[in-house]
Amino acid sequence: MTTAPRVRILSTGSEILQGLYPDTNAQLLSRILSARGFRVAGHVAAPDSPLLIEKALETALRDCDLLVMTGGLGPTEDDVNRDILASLWDRPLELDERAEAMMRERFAARGIEMPQGNVVQAMLPGGCVPLYNHWGTAPGFVLPPDKGHPVLVALPGPAGEWRPMLEAAFEEVLLDSFPNLPVRAVHTLHVAMTPESIVNEELADLFSGREGVELTLLARRGHIRVRIVAEGVDAAEADGRVAELRAEVVRRLGAELVFVEGPEDMTGAQALVEMLASRGETLALAESCTGGAIARAVTDVPGSSAVFLAGWVTYSNAAKSRDLGVAEELIAAHGAVSGEVARAMAERAREIAGAEWALSVTGIAGPSGGTEEKPVGTVWIGMAGEAGSEAHQFLFSGDRAAVREWSVNQAVELLRRCVRGVERTALLRPGRIDAAG
Amino acid sequence: MTTAPRVRILSTGSEILQGLYPDTNAQLLSRILSARGFRVAGHVAAPDSPLLIEKALETALRDCDLLVMTGGLGPTEDDVNRDILASLWDRPLELDERAEAMMRERFAARGIEMPQGNVVQAMLPGGCVPLYNHWGTAPGFVLPPDKGHPVLVALPGPAGEWRPMLEAAFEEVLLDSFPNLPVRAVHTLHVAMTPESIVNEELADLFSGREGVELTLLARRGHIRVRIVAEGVDAAEADGRVAELRAEVVRRLGAELVFVEGPEDMTGAQALVEMLASRGETLALAESCTGGAIARAVTDVPGSSAVFLAGWVTYSNAAKSRDLGVAEELIAAHGAVSGEVARAMAERAREIAGAEWALSVTGIAGPSGGTEEKPVGTVWIGMAGEAGSEAHQFLFSGDRAAVREWSVNQAVELLRRCVRGVERTALLRPGRIDAAG
Repeated sequence: MTTAPRVRILSTGSEILQGLYPDTNAQLLSRILSARGFRVAGHVAAPDSPLLIEKALETALRDCDLLVMTGGLGPTEDDVNRDILASLWDRPLELDERAEAMMRERFAARGIEMPQGNVVQAMLPGGCVPLYNHWGTAPGFVLPPDKGHPVLVALPGPAGEWRPMLEAAFEEVLLDSFPNLPVRAVHTLHVAMTPESIVNEELADLFSGREGVELTLLARRGHIRVRIVAEGVDAAEADGRVAELRAEVVRRLGAELVFVEGPEDMTGAQALVEMLASRGETLALAESCTGGAIARAVTDVPGSSAVFLAGWVTYSNAAKSRDLGVAEELIAAHGAVSGEVARAMAERAREIAGAEWALSVTGIAGPSGGTEEKPVGTVWIGMAGEAGSEAHQFLFSGDRAAVREWSVNQAVELLRRCVRGVERTALLRPGRIDAAG
Repeated sequence: MTTAPRVRILSTGSEILQGLYPDTNAQLLSRILSARGFRVAGHVAAPDSPLLIEKALETALRDCDLLVMTGGLGPTEDDVNRDILASLWDRPLELDERAEAMMRERFAARGIEMPQGNVVQAMLPGGCVPLYNHWGTAPGFVLPPDKGHPVLVALPGPAGEWRPMLEAAFEEVLLDSFPNLPVRAVHTLHVAMTPESIVNEELADLFSGREGVELTLLARRGHIRVRIVAEGVDAAEADGRVAELRAEVVRRLGAELVFVEGPEDMTGAQALVEMLASRGETLALAESCTGGAIARAVTDVPGSSAVFLAGWVTYSNAAKSRDLGVAEELIAAHGAVSGEVARAMAERAREIAGAEWALSVTGIAGPSGGTEEKPVGTVWIGMAGEAGSEAHQFLFSGDRAAVREWSVNQAVELLRRCVRGVERTALLRPGRIDAAG
């Protein structure tokens, strides 16, 4: 994919350099611009210092066809990007009356008079293409390739503001500036309950050497994303290349390992909710060591109220007996972390809620609570449906957060397989998952 | 803080440039190196391409005293950083026998013979200070300031590996290379249930103009972090500067607004759990629109089992009546999203669980379910204790995820104030929170 124009991304803001948060603008811009057909050649971040931003710009402007910059367009003295760019392009700032009017309206709508200091935000380099901001105050702009510089897009910091402004920039000027952008297609297959090493091995020879198409694996605690990006002269060619590689991936992994094909940020809980919704079936949850994390993941999904009826976070043994009616003798005989208790929790949650399906988790997330026999990371996942109940034991590695995330990812996928009636134990044993039982 | 040596951070890895995840290494390194007394002058990220890494290095090596690089030390062809650095410093790669032995042991411990290709990871630039890796395979190294270059630290990609290796680099060489590092002290005050605009206004003149001390605000959906960083010739001076500014912040905001002072990544749920644990008191939860998110935040805290007894995710009206015993007539008369139902949920959860305190949330997180009278974002938070119950209404703005996050942050802080017996309504009304009632 070397024919794509090169883009560099420059983020400005002292907070990024102090490490107060990760540079998610650079990440999101990279995803969007890659999908648009650009090759992202580099990220740079600079603090709110004119000297350091100028130095960063000097370098970033070399060896690229497009530079996208975020931040530094506010009304304070720290916001120096407008001045620096006007000077580099030798296009003195001029008042954009529409931008000023939009800002005044925005303040008026909130019943506030606009502070005079804000007018500076409507001062844009002469002859630029303004990018009006309907979602915040600072307008952005596009500067043409001039003075030996590439095309420059200046955007405000908040993603909610710059995302639609970047779309406008494509419509208004970038598609004309880059008429030969390759067409890209992106497709993601999600794989769960399978060690990354196995997926990696199965797909080893597909990672490179294919014309116009790239395969990437992204694994996180039991949820592996297999990402295919293809390039073509048109959508048909790009889609065709994706379809060809996708078919090969599915053939090698088997359709049952690939739990869903959908957006990159799809979760297992979302796949479960969507599957149950399409079947018109309902769900109850009984959680101990995941402590509400599965309920939260399920209710993160808009529309989950059609599927999810009720959840119990029975963190104490007393709650398991009192609220779910798990027999105290059962807990005494097998321990709270046992297949028997996991099954009883799922069975009782299903009965009480009157749901078609129930999922339960009981385990030792750590850091304390582990024993020789049941070390930290021991987790039982139970499921109940019309046909009965079952439970599976796992031994997850990592800290408390890791054990809980593994548990959520495995639990929702186990139930998805249970609902579909497919194999649930085949790949649970290998080393990377540290799964037993 | 201009006397601090300048550090630049270079992250390598194509996934970063494709936007598959944010560059959290650059963030974490920035936090650590800032706290160590460095000034972070820039971040750069480059894909796994020798040409682009060389170009990025060329720039990054200028105008800094230390360059820290992550990634690119693996055994594959994509891992080019060793070769590039050996060439730039003119120090050909030599086998480090201890590093090789450590890798072989690591593989042997897993019962695997080390693939011959891995030996390349033990090839380090001649005369470097090796940074041995006890947590993974690839060793890192420190190169001295030579050929006009600054000090260079090369680290592997995974943070779990490079964090202890960076500590070792400080002990073994960096403290000698930078003997005059200013001493820094960092202190964070957490503020909740107060609009960012008010905190901002109260502290406006403290943000700049003070010798050797900096104040930063970081606001996210009802949780504001006020961060103080001070510098001194020794710890006493730095701590003194922090203490002075901290006292002024607390004086202006009032001790009741500052809900806790602690680590930067402290959550409100953690503060609540720690407070209840210190009082020997217990907690029950009854959640509707937050769907388990509060239970999850509470159980994210290690040791929360001493405090948290049981939670109900009563997502449906039927569950509110059946599992908590909220009267059906109450729901019919006032609606599930009402102060009456919020109070009843908290009262019943407290009674059933036998807890000292209970917290409940019922609201409309969206995207659907809103009405003229109760628009999306309408949330009632209820609390119950020995003295009785109360409920507070909010109107949060933003999407489903935002409404849920606001709800969690407000709920845990409301209960914290209720337990301490301090004011709970004073600052709920202003615009930024969009709170009513």
